[in-house]
Amino acid sequence: MDVQELLHALRAITGPGHVDARDDVREEDTHDEALTGEPSVPLAVVRPSTTEQVSALLALADAERIPVVARGSGTGLSGGARPVAEGIVVCFDQMAKILEIDEQNHVAVAQPGVTLHELDGALRPLGLVYPVHPGEMRSSLGGNVATNAGGMRAVRYGVTRHHVLGLELVLPGGEVLRTGGKLVKSSSGYDLTQLVLGSEGTLALVTEVTVKLVPRFAHHATLLAPFSTLGLVAAAIPPLLASGIAPVILEYLDTGAMGAIVEEAGIELGIPCHVRETTAAYLVVVLESARADRLDEDTESAAELLERHGALDVYVLQPSAGTSLVSARERVFFVAKALGADDIVDTVVPRSEIPALLARAAQLGDQHGAIISGCGHVGDGNVHLSVFQPDARRRHELLEALFRAARDLGGAVSGEHGIGTEKRSYFQELEDPAKISLMRRIKAAFDPNGILGPGRLLDTPLPQAAAASGRSAAGSGPSAAAAGWSVERSSEGR
Amino acid sequence: MDVQELLHALRAITGPGHVDARDDVREEDTHDEALTGEPSVPLAVVRPSTTEQVSALLALADAERIPVVARGSGTGLSGGARPVAEGIVVCFDQMAKILEIDEQNHVAVAQPGVTLHELDGALRPLGLVYPVHPGEMRSSLGGNVATNAGGMRAVRYGVTRHHVLGLELVLPGGEVLRTGGKLVKSSSGYDLTQLVLGSEGTLALVTEVTVKLVPRFAHHATLLAPFSTLGLVAAAIPPLLASGIAPVILEYLDTGAMGAIVEEAGIELGIPCHVRETTAAYLVVVLESARADRLDEDTESAAELLERHGALDVYVLQPSAGTSLVSARERVFFVAKALGADDIVDTVVPRSEIPALLARAAQLGDQHGAIISGCGHVGDGNVHLSVFQPDARRRHELLEALFRAARDLGGAVSGEHGIGTEKRSYFQELEDPAKISLMRRIKAAFDPNGILGPGRLLDTPLPQAAAASGRSAAGSGPSAAAAGWSVERSSEGR
Repeated sequence: MDVQELLHALRAITGPGHVDARDDVREEDTHDEALTGEPSVPLAVVRPSTTEQVSALLALADAERIPVVARGSGTGLSGGARPVAEGIVVCFDQMAKILEIDEQNHVAVAQPGVTLHELDGALRPLGLVYPVHPGEMRSSLGGNVATNAGGMRAVRYGVTRHHVLGLELVLPGGEVLRTGGKLVKSSSGYDLTQLVLGSEGTLALVTEVTVKLVPRFAHHATLLAPFSTLGLVAAAIPPLLASGIAPVILEYLDTGAMGAIVEEAGIELGIPCHVRETTAAYLVVVLESARADRLDEDTESAAELLERHGALDVYVLQPSAGTSLVSARERVFFVAKALGADDIVDTVVPRSEIPALLARAAQLGDQHGAIISGCGHVGDGNVHLSVFQPDARRRHELLEALFRAARDLGGAVSGEHGIGTEKRSYFQELEDPAKISLMRRIKAAFDPNGILGPGRLLDTPLPQAAAASGRSAAGSGPSAAAAGWSVERSSEGR
Repeated sequence: MDVQELLHALRAITGPGHVDARDDVREEDTHDEALTGEPSVPLAVVRPSTTEQVSALLALADAERIPVVARGSGTGLSGGARPVAEGIVVCFDQMAKILEIDEQNHVAVAQPGVTLHELDGALRPLGLVYPVHPGEMRSSLGGNVATNAGGMRAVRYGVTRHHVLGLELVLPGGEVLRTGGKLVKSSSGYDLTQLVLGSEGTLALVTEVTVKLVPRFAHHATLLAPFSTLGLVAAAIPPLLASGIAPVILEYLDTGAMGAIVEEAGIELGIPCHVRETTAAYLVVVLESARADRLDEDTESAAELLERHGALDVYVLQPSAGTSLVSARERVFFVAKALGADDIVDTVVPRSEIPALLARAAQLGDQHGAIISGCGHVGDGNVHLSVFQPDARRRHELLEALFRAARDLGGAVSGEHGIGTEKRSYFQELEDPAKISLMRRIKAAFDPNGILGPGRLLDTPLPQAAAASGRSAAGSGPSAAAAGWSVERSSEGR
C-alpha cells in the first residue's frame, strides 16, 4: 500500500474531511508542548468520530504495519503525541462528547477528546467535580489517561489512575474491549484499566473513559508560608497531613519560581522585605471544606502548625489573591518557556527526599553551568524543575545525573508527565532492564506488530513492513519542508 | 525429577524444617475458607524465609514445570490458596516481618505474611492506619494484594489497590523485580504494581509490599437506620455522599442477615417491634473524625438526611453497641457458614443497581428453591450473599444466572474476594472472550510455562511437563487419603 492508497483507505473509513495528508497537516499537529524535540510531520492526521472508525483505522494500520500515534489536545510535555514521520496520527478532537453524567453513581462517561475544562463546566452546576486538575485544563481526558496525569490536587485526591473506573479500548487489529465500569472495585481478572492507564498510547487506543466524581466543596482558603530552608518545608508536611487536615494543594516554590510567576501574573503578595530576604522556599497550602466554619478552624490550625514547624510567617490570602496565586502556579510551565527554559523535568521521589534531590540538583546545576529552578507537589515528592542550559549534550548529562539521583533516592523519572519520546533515553538507561523486558512482553501481548506509539516509553522499533513500503518520510520530505517546518527523520524507533 | 528429588531440592533451598512433604502436609494447608471445593493435598508445602529462597524456588519450579500456589493466611473465600495436587504450595507465614514504618512518608513496608492485625497493632501507637479492613484481620497482606481485598471501609478509603505503592516480585524463573516505591504517583512505564494487584498469584509471587498510611481518627459514631425497602436505602446513598460527610462505612443488611448476626453476637439493638415489622433492610453508617465536635455535627446531619430520605427511624448507637454491631457484621461469613450456607458470592454492580440485582436474586432463589440472604457495601455496589441450596447443579445454575444478571447490570463476578478456583467457571463463561484472551497473553508475558496458580482465575492448563513426570497426584493418593482427607483429583487445570 503506497501513500495514496493509504490516504484513500483512511478517507474511506472516516470520510474525506477527516484526513489531512502530509502536505495539509496543521502545524500544531506536528508536536506537543515538550520543549525539546523537533516537530515531526506524519503521513496523515486522521480524526475519527466513532469507536467503529477507530477500530477500522487500527485494523488497517495493523494489517499494513503503519505506526499510529494518538493525540488528544497536544498539551503533553514529553513528546507523547509527537508524530512518527512514517506513520499516522489518530487525533481525538472529533470524539469529544460527554456521554453521561450519572448522579446516582457519581460517575461521568466521556469520549477521550473531552477537555478537563469542558468536563468541569458540565459538573459544576451539579455540585460534583472530577478532581484531577493537572495545570492544563485544556488537556483532554484521553491524554490524561495516557500519561496518568496528576496535578496539584493529587495530595488529596490522587491522580488519574485513582479516578478512572473503566475504559473502552481498541486494540491493534481493531478489537474493541470494555474494561471496568461504573464500579469502584472489582477483583475479577487482571485490571486492564489500570494497565492501560499511563501506558502513553502504546498498548491500545482509548475511545471512552468512565471516571469517578466527588462532591465539589464551596469553601477554599489559601495559606502562603515562607521558610528559610526547603528542608523545613519538607519537615512540616508529615505533621500537617497527620493532623487530619486534608489539604487539597501542598505546593512548594523556590524563590526563582515564585518571583517569576508573581511577576508574570502581576500579583503583589505583600510579604515584607525582611521576610523575603531570608526565604528560601514558599509553601502554598489550599484547604477546602463544605462548611465555612470548618474551613476557618482548619485555616487557623494549619497556620499555627506551620508556624510551630518553622515557617517564617504564615499569610492567609484573600480569596482573589489565593485564586490568582494558584492560577499563576498552574502557568509556571509557560512562564518557564517564555523565559527560555531548555527543558523541564517532573521527577518524583519519596516526599522526604525532596530536599536531598534539590540539593543534588543545585550541585549538578553548578557543575554543568545550568540554572535549575522550580516548584512542585511537596506532599507527593514530585518536583517540577526548569533547566536552563542550551547545550544539548551538557543538558543531557545533567538530566541523566539528576534522574539517577532521583532513582537512587527511591524515585522515578516522571511523576505525571510521562516518558514520551523526550525522556525515553533516560528511562531506558536508568530503569531495571528486567522490568523493561517485562514491559516489552506486555506490549507484545497487546500490540504484537508494534504499531502503537513506536519510540515512546519503550524503544520499540518501527513496525517491520514500514521500511520496505513506499511510505517513508524521506519520500515526501521536500513537500513537507516546503510547507514551512522540518521533517524529523525519526529519532523515534531507532 | 521425581518426588524424592523434588523434596531434596526444596529442602536444599529452604532448609529441611521448612518443607512438608505430601504425607506431612497440615490439614489447614489443604484449603482456604471457600465453602465449596474439596481440600487438595500438594506434593509439598514450602515455607521460605527470604526473597532469595523464593527466587530459588521459582527457578526450580519453572525449570521443572511444577505448579506453584501461593498461600498467605488461608483466609481467602474463592479457593485462591487451594493447592494443586501435582504442585507445591509456597506459604508465606515465615516471611511475616514489618520491615519499616516510615513516619516521614506515611508508608509501611512489610513482608507478605504479615497479618492486617499485626500491621494495625504496630501502627496504632503512631496515630496512623492502613485503612483497608476486609472482614478478616487475620488475613495476610500478601493475600490482600493477591485478591485486591476491600472491606467495609472502601467507601471512604478505597481498596488494596489504592494503598499499595510498591512491590517486590519474583517471576517464574526466579527474577526479582521491584515495582513502584514510596511514591504516591509515577508515570514511568506500565504500572506493574497495579497489574500484579488482584492477579491472584498467577503472574508473580509477592515478597514485599509497600503501603500508604493515613491518619487514624480518634472519634467514631455508628448510626443504624431501618428502611422499608432496599430501594430507599440505595436512593439515600448519593445525597449522603454528595453532602460532603464522608462515611467510613456504609453497609446494608437484609433482615435475615441482621437477625443472624445480632443473635450470634448477642446484641440487643433496641429497635421497637413496630419498626422491625416494616423493615426490609438496615443501613449501618459509621462516621469518623479527628474532632469530637465535628463528629457530633456530622452525626446529626447524617441522621437528618437519612430521615429525610425515607429511613423509618435513625438510631445513634452507643459506642460499645456500634463497635459490637460492626464486629458482628465482620463475622457474617462465619455466621453464614455455621448456618449451613452452601456458597457465598460477592458480586459487584454500579451501586444504584443493587436493588435490581437483589430483586433478581430473590426471583432466582424462588426459581431454584434456594434461600439467598445477605448484606453488602451499599456505597460500593458490592453485595455479599449467602446461598443456601445444597444441590450443586441447581446452585450452579442459580449462581450463573445471578452473575449474568450482575454483568448485564454493568457489574462483575467478584468485588473483592477474587475468582480463585471456585468462581472461575462463572468468570470464564461470562467474561468477554477477547478480554480473557488478552489476559492469557499477559499471563504468558510473566509466566510463559504456566507454573503459577494453574486453574485459578484463568483456566490455564497444568504446565506441560507435569503430566509425564513421576509426580502425579494419583501416585501418592493412598497415603494422602490415609492421612484422613480426600485428594482432589485436580479440577484445576482442566
